[in-house]
Amino acid sequence: MILVRQEIGDVLRDYRLQKGRTLRQVAGRASVALGYLSEVERGQKEASSEILASVADALDVPLSVILRRVSDRLAVSEGANANSNMSGMHIPDTVPAELVAHYDASLMSGRI
Amino acid sequence: MILVRQEIGDVLRDYRLQKGRTLRQVAGRASVALGYLSEVERGQKEASSEILASVADALDVPLSVILRRVSDRLAVSEGANANSNMSGMHIPDTVPAELVAHYDASLMSGRI
Repeated sequence: MILVRQEIGDVLRDYRLQKGRTLRQVAGRASVALGYLSEVERGQKEASSEILASVADALDVPLSVILRRVSDRLAVSEGANANSNMSGMHIPDTVPAELVAHYDASLMSGRI
Repeated sequence: MILVRQEIGDVLRDYRLQKGRTLRQVAGRASVALGYLSEVERGQKEASSEILASVADALDVPLSVILRRVSDRLAVSEGANANSNMSGMHIPDTVPAELVAHYDASLMSGRI
């Protein structure tokens, strides 16, 4: 089972590290406990929507960009899982537009 | 403050309704309480990563696609909020690739 909190944690930590900030700085700016933020980054605690918004703001990254990165990572994980039983398949590094369109088109036509 | 759980709830309900399924059917398939799923759809409860994965599976929609839709909706909300003080600005309906690239490029160059 692929867990969103693990992908969210990785994305949050990546942005924090690349901006050269410490857990203390981000936690302080987001008004969350340092230990809690550490567990969120490690995918061991769920971040509430309020906390996610505060941390995104503290990192100066839009929530939409963070969630976009999360969805891209999930696509890679799902592709890897699907490929573990198949060989030679293309592993997407983002949610293919066709895949999203497929689900929407199928819904529209009532085929699902 | 834009809350991710509200966007997640809207996306989950949209897919459920378009597939013509009831709360009872999806909740049953996902092994979650019907009342709880209702609150998740209405953005009043956070869905844990485990529950999110179960519901996505019950809806036959990849988690990556659900989160992609959530990020697109967030981009619209953020664009609308940004535009409330400005006029004539383009409102994106998905996270612009340039925006994501901007944040990554800025991180790489150390400008942020």
